[in-house]
Amino acid sequence: MKKDDCIFCKIAAGEIGSHTLYEDEDFRVIFDLNPGTKGHALVIPKEHADGIFDMDDETASKVLVVAKKVATAMKEAFNADGFNIIQNNGECAGQSVKHFHMHLFPRYEGDKALGLWKPGQTTDEELQVLEDKVKEILN
Amino acid sequence: MKKDDCIFCKIAAGEIGSHTLYEDEDFRVIFDLNPGTKGHALVIPKEHADGIFDMDDETASKVLVVAKKVATAMKEAFNADGFNIIQNNGECAGQSVKHFHMHLFPRYEGDKALGLWKPGQTTDEELQVLEDKVKEILN
Repeated sequence: MKKDDCIFCKIAAGEIGSHTLYEDEDFRVIFDLNPGTKGHALVIPKEHADGIFDMDDETASKVLVVAKKVATAMKEAFNADGFNIIQNNGECAGQSVKHFHMHLFPRYEGDKALGLWKPGQTTDEELQVLEDKVKEILN
Repeated sequence: MKKDDCIFCKIAAGEIGSHTLYEDEDFRVIFDLNPGTKGHALVIPKEHADGIFDMDDETASKVLVVAKKVATAMKEAFNADGFNIIQNNGECAGQSVKHFHMHLFPRYEGDKALGLWKPGQTTDEELQVLEDKVKEILN
């Protein structure tokens, strides 16, 4: 279902124009208008979900298949050396539009476009506490 | 199929121990031993693929469903405020182990754990050239 006043719902439905690389019944893949690297694109589902947590499993099962298909063509078209696939949930995670979107982020040797994280240190005991908490919820 | 001398194949198969949050027929979800944030975990398919580009569509269709299921429990267990879902392909994209893995990266207000990219500038003409290249390959 579409959500009123959601710009990505309107773009996905074709009501607002975009540079569309791929479209099928469930998704539209468009270029990000403020690309982090050459060819940076977004996989946008037509069905509204704010992010991963409220997305239905049927749509979720299709996202990465579409991502792979389009990223494979992008890699060849742009001679990319690598690829980050990134999906942000929540403002503190860098999500700016509250409609699920998966970034297809081509990488080029030496581009320094994304720093990723600083590897942390942890103990076995700390991980065990966290593991138990998750398992209690899952089981 | 497993690949010889692939550490993630061995971990996924249970031949090397790990903090396992979730396991099913196709996947094992474990904690990253050098976490970028509290609870940083990895979704690892049991079937070997170097990355997204050589992964079969059937496995690809299951990854995000598992990611959602486990991330939902993690979010509750750790009181996370947001979540990045990240999958890196190629050394220049930050992939250190050549076996597909999807990072489940919990975020906490003000953690500054991940900088993401600097938004670029582009023209409609530039995007049109890139769009045509991708469509030529896809169609």
